[in-house]
Amino acid sequence: MDFDSILRKIKPTQKDKEKVENLSNKIIKQLNTIIKDEKIDSEAVLLGSIAKDTWLKGKADIDIFLTFSLNTSQEDLKKYGLKIGHKCIDNLKGKCEERYASHPYVTGFIGGYSIDIVPCYKINDGDQIKSAVDRTLLHTKYIKKNISKKQTDEVLLLKKFMESIETYGSESKVGGFAGYLCELLILKYDTFCAVLKAASKWKKHTIIDLENYGTGKQFNDPLIVIDPVDKNRNVAASLSLQKMAEFMAASRNFIKEPKLEYFEKTEKFTELKDIITLFNIKSTETYVVSFKPPKIPEDTIYPQLRKTERSLASKLTKEGFIIFKTSSWTDSENLAIILIEVASKNISGYKNYTGPRIWDENHQEKFILKHNTIPWIEGEYWLVKVSTTDNIEELIKNLFKPENIHYLKVGKNIKNQLLNEYSIMEIKEFLSNNQLSIDLLEFLSDFLIPGKNLFR
Amino acid sequence: MDFDSILRKIKPTQKDKEKVENLSNKIIKQLNTIIKDEKIDSEAVLLGSIAKDTWLKGKADIDIFLTFSLNTSQEDLKKYGLKIGHKCIDNLKGKCEERYASHPYVTGFIGGYSIDIVPCYKINDGDQIKSAVDRTLLHTKYIKKNISKKQTDEVLLLKKFMESIETYGSESKVGGFAGYLCELLILKYDTFCAVLKAASKWKKHTIIDLENYGTGKQFNDPLIVIDPVDKNRNVAASLSLQKMAEFMAASRNFIKEPKLEYFEKTEKFTELKDIITLFNIKSTETYVVSFKPPKIPEDTIYPQLRKTERSLASKLTKEGFIIFKTSSWTDSENLAIILIEVASKNISGYKNYTGPRIWDENHQEKFILKHNTIPWIEGEYWLVKVSTTDNIEELIKNLFKPENIHYLKVGKNIKNQLLNEYSIMEIKEFLSNNQLSIDLLEFLSDFLIPGKNLFR
Repeated sequence: MDFDSILRKIKPTQKDKEKVENLSNKIIKQLNTIIKDEKIDSEAVLLGSIAKDTWLKGKADIDIFLTFSLNTSQEDLKKYGLKIGHKCIDNLKGKCEERYASHPYVTGFIGGYSIDIVPCYKINDGDQIKSAVDRTLLHTKYIKKNISKKQTDEVLLLKKFMESIETYGSESKVGGFAGYLCELLILKYDTFCAVLKAASKWKKHTIIDLENYGTGKQFNDPLIVIDPVDKNRNVAASLSLQKMAEFMAASRNFIKEPKLEYFEKTEKFTELKDIITLFNIKSTETYVVSFKPPKIPEDTIYPQLRKTERSLASKLTKEGFIIFKTSSWTDSENLAIILIEVASKNISGYKNYTGPRIWDENHQEKFILKHNTIPWIEGEYWLVKVSTTDNIEELIKNLFKPENIHYLKVGKNIKNQLLNEYSIMEIKEFLSNNQLSIDLLEFLSDFLIPGKNLFR
Repeated sequence: MDFDSILRKIKPTQKDKEKVENLSNKIIKQLNTIIKDEKIDSEAVLLGSIAKDTWLKGKADIDIFLTFSLNTSQEDLKKYGLKIGHKCIDNLKGKCEERYASHPYVTGFIGGYSIDIVPCYKINDGDQIKSAVDRTLLHTKYIKKNISKKQTDEVLLLKKFMESIETYGSESKVGGFAGYLCELLILKYDTFCAVLKAASKWKKHTIIDLENYGTGKQFNDPLIVIDPVDKNRNVAASLSLQKMAEFMAASRNFIKEPKLEYFEKTEKFTELKDIITLFNIKSTETYVVSFKPPKIPEDTIYPQLRKTERSLASKLTKEGFIIFKTSSWTDSENLAIILIEVASKNISGYKNYTGPRIWDENHQEKFILKHNTIPWIEGEYWLVKVSTTDNIEELIKNLFKPENIHYLKVGKNIKNQLLNEYSIMEIKEFLSNNQLSIDLLEFLSDFLIPGKNLFR
């Protein structure tokens, strides 16, 4: 495998680096000037992948942290953080917006780069952490101290591979591997190939503990990577079983037959007519619940969307529908959707409904009283035959009524939308009634051919 | 609750007892005469519910055991046991047949009574046991020694209640409570009402340990009742979760509203036209696999039938059919059937098929090679979309072919029948094509209204 040819494409050139460094230095200088002028007790430092030299060409997200001493109040940290950030970007004639991690921060856009200016506490040890972003300081220090020049290249290969098979990124939309996690994997296994070889043999609850803290047993996540700077934190806590499994599968596929194509995204269907054709040849029926997403950060919407999606799927299954697949997507601004693919939109009039277990006397009583037909026992469960709503659209509309919504576990910021303003329609009707962004078309393409990412 | 009025109906009168005692004594005398004449080292003793005085009026099954010393060979025990039994029943002009528990024995029919003549080893302790029937000796001793006159009445109430709600009998056809188990429950809780009160609060894996052996933890059965004469045996091992749960439910119902009707069986539909009507008003479809049962004891057929039934149900579910209920029945001579109630006999052409988990690299490889379409991952599982056989009859016929039968877990004595001679048809066709015994009609009635037993 000619990894050098890949590195030539993905590794920033000396010129790329200089450009980013010059901009970073300029911003930091500007920030520290403002800090001095305003007589604030803080310091701007460069952190993240730029500082660690582990950024992919074309993906230079500049992370600058404003470190405050530990005795600064949360309130001051927020206030000064935003103030300094805004002023700096304004002075440099950039565009500006406020974002939110554990507290609000400023993102600026200058010369095609995006720059996060995040206030944090200046901690020396994981125990001192006051807000989740504080650790970034220690993470950057740890990686810079421990990674070799050769290993930074290996990190780039791993990040690019992850990105191509779509397991990269710890944001909740993805639920994949964070950049820091990729770096730790290289520190653990040394090379890109060794990471893939190890991953292909991972078991559920595999523990990676670089500093031998021995604290892995307290976690129940699919992958456990003890944070070298905080022995009670699992760096892989936000990695979903799904993305861990997908990375393992792609690793096996790559090892079996290494191809350059694993460092490029697979092609997706982004033509509306192709998407319609694919839905047409499916022997199933897909319905779309759509609504305007609430104004909350994307990282908060996605867990709520998926919770709602899972709960709806589970309720529909209980009601007798055969669910093939569900998924959800949002652009965080105008449109949020939940897709439900079912064998048939109508189901037969009766089904067995599983009630409480025999051990639970109180629930038994309520269950028997509720159903005015004779229930029976199968194993330890009470069962009863009930008639069901016939049509999936009707059933969902019913569930979204105020008197029924409690049957679902609905994301709290989504509930209002589902009660008041949503649409439900068959996918082809949805496709012809909506403006479809490239991102949404790609999402639909993945929905239609879900395993495509894993193979080349 | 007027328990005396129930006892008047179910407790043998002095005259009933004398009749049974006279017959038992006559048989034992005859057996011991034969033993003496033949110069065999054995002794006939009365055991079981007659000896313990815990038999229900009209249910006098006379259990006579021929006890042999521990140094007798298995072969001699069998040979002499059958010889003595046959000779005795012949001498008394009764009818005779051979049956099989842990070894063959003789059952005689004299004057409307059935008499089991079972050879066993004369053991003094649970550790000495050589064959499963040997314990009966110790069980009878233990109960006779520990039970009070008042408690034998309580046993009768409990047995009658159990019989009426159809949880009585440890034979595999029922999987319910053995007579000895009922006696131990009364020894534990003292009265019928106290047993029901306790049972209504039982948890899964409740342990009852009359002699405080402390050996309960080794068992994983739903109910654990340590045998007072053998600390490593669970008397309730053959009690199914189903029958334990049914007894608990009926106990709760009785406590809530005690009725004399709980001491009588519920009425069942035994008219063919009613059975047909009930199947007609069901919105589901029921199919019957029928065949001639193998010539093996009923206690062996039922577990094999149920294993086959469970495996078939699980396979059909995987193939996408919605199964409402399955059940099986046999008369052990001419007919064995497996019933399958499905939402619809035809299903849509595609379904998600769940493959191996991601942790299993070898199975992953085989799975991916086998399906020439792109599989995908959900959580830790591989999935693939496959086309399915449309029709339940066709699918079952396919499964019963020599090249496919390995997909099922089929009872070993049933396999031949399913490969060579069976029928599969819709229930109404089956009903019009077969002679239906009362027992089968009652079974069908239970199938149609499964929880009826538990309520009065």
